[in-house]
Amino acid sequence: MSPFTGSATRTPDWRHLRLAVDDGVATVTLARPDKLNALTFGAYADLRDLLAELSRDKSVRALVLGGEGRGFCSGGDVDEIIGATLAMDTAQLLDFNRMTGQVVRAVRECPFPVIAAVHGVAAGAGAVLALAADFRIADPSAKFAFLFTRVGLSGGDMGAAYLLPRVVGLGHATRLLMLGEPVRAPEAERIGLISELTEEGKAAEAAAALARRLADGPALAYAQTKALLTAELDMPLAAAVELDAATQALLMNGEDYAEFHAAFTEKRPPKWQGR
Amino acid sequence: MSPFTGSATRTPDWRHLRLAVDDGVATVTLARPDKLNALTFGAYADLRDLLAELSRDKSVRALVLGGEGRGFCSGGDVDEIIGATLAMDTAQLLDFNRMTGQVVRAVRECPFPVIAAVHGVAAGAGAVLALAADFRIADPSAKFAFLFTRVGLSGGDMGAAYLLPRVVGLGHATRLLMLGEPVRAPEAERIGLISELTEEGKAAEAAAALARRLADGPALAYAQTKALLTAELDMPLAAAVELDAATQALLMNGEDYAEFHAAFTEKRPPKWQGR
Amino acid sequence: MSPFTGSATRTPDWRHLRLAVDDGVATVTLARPDKLNALTFGAYADLRDLLAELSRDKSVRALVLGGEGRGFCSGGDVDEIIGATLAMDTAQLLDFNRMTGQVVRAVRECPFPVIAAVHGVAAGAGAVLALAADFRIADPSAKFAFLFTRVGLSGGDMGAAYLLPRVVGLGHATRLLMLGEPVRAPEAERIGLISELTEEGKAAEAAAALARRLADGPALAYAQTKALLTAELDMPLAAAVELDAATQALLMNGEDYAEFHAAFTEKRPPKWQGR
Repeated sequence: MSPFTGSATRTPDWRHLRLAVDDGVATVTLARPDKLNALTFGAYADLRDLLAELSRDKSVRALVLGGEGRGFCSGGDVDEIIGATLAMDTAQLLDFNRMTGQVVRAVRECPFPVIAAVHGVAAGAGAVLALAADFRIADPSAKFAFLFTRVGLSGGDMGAAYLLPRVVGLGHATRLLMLGEPVRAPEAERIGLISELTEEGKAAEAAAALARRLADGPALAYAQTKALLTAELDMPLAAAVELDAATQALLMNGEDYAEFHAAFTEKRPPKWQGR
Repeated sequence: MSPFTGSATRTPDWRHLRLAVDDGVATVTLARPDKLNALTFGAYADLRDLLAELSRDKSVRALVLGGEGRGFCSGGDVDEIIGATLAMDTAQLLDFNRMTGQVVRAVRECPFPVIAAVHGVAAGAGAVLALAADFRIADPSAKFAFLFTRVGLSGGDMGAAYLLPRVVGLGHATRLLMLGEPVRAPEAERIGLISELTEEGKAAEAAAALARRLADGPALAYAQTKALLTAELDMPLAAAVELDAATQALLMNGEDYAEFHAAFTEKRPPKWQGR
Repeated sequence: MSPFTGSATRTPDWRHLRLAVDDGVATVTLARPDKLNALTFGAYADLRDLLAELSRDKSVRALVLGGEGRGFCSGGDVDEIIGATLAMDTAQLLDFNRMTGQVVRAVRECPFPVIAAVHGVAAGAGAVLALAADFRIADPSAKFAFLFTRVGLSGGDMGAAYLLPRVVGLGHATRLLMLGEPVRAPEAERIGLISELTEEGKAAEAAAALARRLADGPALAYAQTKALLTAELDMPLAAAVELDAATQALLMNGEDYAEFHAAFTEKRPPKWQGR
């Protein structure tokens, strides 16, 4: 538990997603399988708030995000979101779109790696949630589609026009965001959109195994690697090199670095503390 | 027609390129086939001015750029440009190079998608014109070559040292800009330099079909997708997410978003207005 | 020799690496083959100082960096660096990490292309040295591994979290820096991490041939291409286009551009002066 814990308590019950925490690994499951896990206002708000809570809490060292049933996430619900937003005024629309953006920022900025376990459809906001994750582990059924222009909206939703060119290059990103066409697993692998392609039906299992490995490893080193990857996309080289130097100096004072050296010298595996 | 139309009128006759406009699709053809469409001072100036006019005009919703004859564009004409620049003073040289850069900025910043239809040679400035487009549709005869160092100039011409690393990554971009070696269609596809590889001789047809689809679709959504892709290359994540939120809130007030929902509810295809 | 030569003289003897200069081509060899060329404090300091001297000197137009023996470079020496840093105070740790970052900045900012000739292991700081080079020429034995998290440190070391996403995209970069797993030559080629894959045992020879070609060519054009590629990663499009215009105007006043035109007109190969 962090010493910087204020009055805010942890939410006892997440109503719009399913959360399990097991020894440093949080597993978040989008669980509206009858709707292909279409997102509701509540689901967005819960993702935002859950990531904020877990970031403060410090007990989580890796997070898996997956979907129950036939696919990962079909994006914003056509009735509950598209229909509802048509009745909103401008301030409400801005509020809603800022909230969805906050989810993506939270995924990029939380102090633990996020692993999306993708099977079946990852569409619209579902595709961007997966895109914001640090790892995308997918099985051959995975189908990514940045559908926004198909509903008359901008392909730049929730940071997609920032993130996708940095993952697959500007050419592929333009094609995918402009046209909203599906990207199946082989193309996703070829263009660098997925981190690991598993056998059919094995994405969740592989994601859980990676999360376990990350949570049991030098977790502060992983967290800082993520923080630097995120921050240095927005920095010039000279600043990035200085940030790296300060970060390594910090970690060289940490327990895991000393433990590595002791273990190496004693020819045994290191016992990582994550600090 | 835009309500923000001032005294400037449309140019009645483009002397250094061929323009056709058909129901929202502009087709610009480089038409000096005996010179492999080598660019002249007039061709650069016409591209700059045409893109500015079409951007003001608002009747164009997609643009195809192609070349007549055996190839797309062989770049700046050796006699009419290289020879002529050797006689220029410093201010004139700067003026010329700023003009070519303005063409690339206009391609990236105009409010409609630009599709380069590439067959045969796309060399020097021709390669950068294609690179600046949103889509590069090429057939197997396509051969890109960033020839600048071959004539003693910097590979960073017209924004190429900015754009190419963001399309194919810094490693490939360094190799291509430094050495000026040709990239044929299979490599171009492998490294993400082209958007679509067609059958031999079919690039122009495929580009026209894509332009038609874009012009008939939710054109404001496409235009904003392009604008965000361009702008967010130069923005930090937090700013990009905020820009996305404001843009989506804007488009959620638009006609096409409401039309999508109505069409979906009525189980019919949407009738896009482009606004 | 540069006219801007002050009192500082060239170092007569590099004790922690091997240097050979031959008609504009510098060859730097990491030469601790019994330790897989593991880097020591002295080796880092020599790389930093050597690149600074060669950058001032102006006689070098291309540089090859390679390793003697079974591999390229296994990274920081476990005993001489990891062990020693465990005894350092915070200021010393910062000093050390800034020095390693200065080496990477020097590789990116020196006014000549740097070619890494990679065979066997390029691990930890060795992988980042190769990553910072303009060209990575590798043979099938090449094995890159960004091992930092394996020793409890951040994967963002020496600018790796800045450079790697810009070379292979954020998805691959996250996987490689977070997990520290080896990337063998076929994957390195597939994701754009290497510039050229040679036959077994031929990386050094191919690197020397490329360096010779670069040194004998329009070297100022190459140097400016490199400078723009480096600078424009950190610039918005409009600034990059302006920098390109100023650079081309400068080079259009140069000897090599005029020589190209003369040679073209006379149908003979150009005699490049590199200025």
